[in-house]
Amino acid sequence: MLTPFGSTRRTRVEAAGDSNLLALVESCAPVVTVVGKSWDLHVTRVLETSLDENLNMVRDSVRFLRGKGKRVFFDAEHFFDGFRANPRYAVEVVLAAAEAGAEHIVLCDTNGGTLPEEVARIVSAVKYDTGARLGIHTHNDTDTAVASALAAVRAGATQVQGTINGYGERCGNANLISVAAAMSLKMGIRSLSDAQLGNLTQVSRYVAEIANIPHAPSQPYVGASAFAHKGGLHVAAVAKVKESYEHIRPELVGNANRVLVSELSGRGNILRKVQDLGLGVTLTPDQAAKLLERVKELESRGFQYEGAEASFDLLVRRSLPGYEAPFVLARTAVSSGQWVRAKKQALGKAEITVEVGGKKVSSSAAGNGPVNALDTALRQALVQSYPALSAVRLTDYKVRVVDERHGTAAVVRVLIESTDGERTWRTVGASANIIEASWMALADSLEWAIRA
Amino acid sequence: MLTPFGSTRRTRVEAAGDSNLLALVESCAPVVTVVGKSWDLHVTRVLETSLDENLNMVRDSVRFLRGKGKRVFFDAEHFFDGFRANPRYAVEVVLAAAEAGAEHIVLCDTNGGTLPEEVARIVSAVKYDTGARLGIHTHNDTDTAVASALAAVRAGATQVQGTINGYGERCGNANLISVAAAMSLKMGIRSLSDAQLGNLTQVSRYVAEIANIPHAPSQPYVGASAFAHKGGLHVAAVAKVKESYEHIRPELVGNANRVLVSELSGRGNILRKVQDLGLGVTLTPDQAAKLLERVKELESRGFQYEGAEASFDLLVRRSLPGYEAPFVLARTAVSSGQWVRAKKQALGKAEITVEVGGKKVSSSAAGNGPVNALDTALRQALVQSYPALSAVRLTDYKVRVVDERHGTAAVVRVLIESTDGERTWRTVGASANIIEASWMALADSLEWAIRA
Repeated sequence: MLTPFGSTRRTRVEAAGDSNLLALVESCAPVVTVVGKSWDLHVTRVLETSLDENLNMVRDSVRFLRGKGKRVFFDAEHFFDGFRANPRYAVEVVLAAAEAGAEHIVLCDTNGGTLPEEVARIVSAVKYDTGARLGIHTHNDTDTAVASALAAVRAGATQVQGTINGYGERCGNANLISVAAAMSLKMGIRSLSDAQLGNLTQVSRYVAEIANIPHAPSQPYVGASAFAHKGGLHVAAVAKVKESYEHIRPELVGNANRVLVSELSGRGNILRKVQDLGLGVTLTPDQAAKLLERVKELESRGFQYEGAEASFDLLVRRSLPGYEAPFVLARTAVSSGQWVRAKKQALGKAEITVEVGGKKVSSSAAGNGPVNALDTALRQALVQSYPALSAVRLTDYKVRVVDERHGTAAVVRVLIESTDGERTWRTVGASANIIEASWMALADSLEWAIRA
Repeated sequence: MLTPFGSTRRTRVEAAGDSNLLALVESCAPVVTVVGKSWDLHVTRVLETSLDENLNMVRDSVRFLRGKGKRVFFDAEHFFDGFRANPRYAVEVVLAAAEAGAEHIVLCDTNGGTLPEEVARIVSAVKYDTGARLGIHTHNDTDTAVASALAAVRAGATQVQGTINGYGERCGNANLISVAAAMSLKMGIRSLSDAQLGNLTQVSRYVAEIANIPHAPSQPYVGASAFAHKGGLHVAAVAKVKESYEHIRPELVGNANRVLVSELSGRGNILRKVQDLGLGVTLTPDQAAKLLERVKELESRGFQYEGAEASFDLLVRRSLPGYEAPFVLARTAVSSGQWVRAKKQALGKAEITVEVGGKKVSSSAAGNGPVNALDTALRQALVQSYPALSAVRLTDYKVRVVDERHGTAAVVRVLIESTDGERTWRTVGASANIIEASWMALADSLEWAIRA
């Protein structure tokens, strides 16, 4: 569920005339979140208004949104600092929001400076004093965001705000992956089903791909090294009583013990993945084994299929007997253009030859850069045979070095996102040559558009 | 103080005849640490001995080392799992070590699976039951290592084992930087002097350098972004009551608050940023206004100086009268190579001409890809005039589309990270042409290496 986020009404303005609140009303979301002040210092010195007017702002805003049929979450900004400075006023803000109809009052440790024990103590006190349904929103400035969120849950909070992998400004937010895993596996609070829990690793890595941030191998529960057993002392012991060296069974969160080659590291997983993708095909054990071999080889060359399902889909299709590639590259030459001092434009040029239905088609194009030129040339060559491609456009393009140790000589991985207006898909390419890696992802994108 | 680390004596061997213990004795360290089993499962199934023999091993080993004049810390491995499985036996191990003369008994959450609340509960119980001086050793497998260490300290532990920056196997250990900062600044436990506290940032970054691990900008207390204020809502407010947006004064731990470059929306911020960078220059109001103009123009073309401070540094230097560029690009031509079906290799080639000290220098190079070729060609052209460049190498290279709506025709932003073994810096380039954007970031990287 997506909820739009906005502030309480401005000072000395009617809620019904506040453009931010109106925008929340106009959103089609059934739940909206509004943030307001609960620290007296911020009311008087940042908002520069009176404590009473701030209570009115909270009350009016929540009531107005409720009147428009919205469910409302209220985020009490700087709550913990506010509670330390003026507990009575901070609690009044919670009561104002609750009485106006806010469904959850979320206590925010906006500066991230509160330790878990104090979070628990304050959440307990507010819960006792107000009876409101409370949420918790922590930041990681003291390296304890997850612990504080869990402490608040123990103290009675029933909503946790955070982010996948803890991404967020400064030191990040509470990592929801860790919070969800601990609640389900350590605290007996089943916020996720077993199946959802089993997807945590995949979700975490997918979001890292989309954010173009390397997935930390040391990330708790879901990192590639989270269940890696180091040598020396432990090796023999691990073999004897494996479970005694793991705080949970890694499969529960979709991870595995050992350094992962990938989540597709077994024939069973390949078959499950094929089923998950809904390709409507059944692989024989032999086909699955061959596909697994191919995936492993490609991964060792820098490909990664998490976040590039369309390329994986094509791998599966190509492994089936009778699959016919819609086009095959015969030859390409790309120049990245030249540019001369004081002459701004740097054109790229691409010439390609592809085989389509047994015939060779050549095409050349110029573009703002070499990748753009390559894209244009490829489309030109294919659009006569596959007119549907004219609706396909690229919506994102990302590059990352796979092996950071070798700088520009390292393998780069290109991820491309495409759409035809209805569907959105992602493809991957990997090569030491950024243009070749781009070509791979581009070609997969168009092949998938034609075949899927 | 360094303390050597070893195991309790082997089974069925006299302590005086155990080579590991003898090595500890021979070390010149006044304090030694021995690790032993406290989980019954590990005693019977990993050591394959009796519970009594394990108690003897603990007792004999500690007593032997004490007899040789050593102070002894005893690490009780898997203590929390052991306590859950057989609390009575786990406590017997603690007592055996304490009675034999161990100065601190360190309770280890070796698998890292225990949440802070349970750590506190168990430490309290053991403290109450044994009266021993306890320590705590946590791992970050549940994303709560720091919180668990702090919870144990509150429950009576007087020694914390962890690592600088939390480095360690699997998900890492308790981060001692965060533990020390919280104890001193949040819990009133002065484990460090003010001066030592003020060195935390430097220590953290120094250890990262030595370990050759990039220092995480998001690291609590000491990261480069730990006190970074982003724009929007907060800018005016931060100016009004700065302290209210920071959970501690960053100077206390040797860090500084910084305005992110992308929010340099006023002349005052530009001046402040120039000061922050420690360039030792003072801009006139007119120079600051011109620089701001230039930054805005470049940002509108896709540049972003957050995370590319070396490029920003160069912008400032270039805006000063008398700055002389160490080289100027005269001409370049780059080909991304061509590749033909079934022929795997796709070489890149680059030819460049630069002016260095009034003379034109030409150079050409081939590489795994066009960017690698460009990098090599540029270094070749410059290294004779600037030999220090031979130590510079690229450590990271990232590309992202700035305007996602236009796919491959959109502007791409390239971020490059470089090092000369001592310093690490980041530069940026932006263009519709990925090769040109890469050139810009590469050229900035080398110019910064020469001039800064």
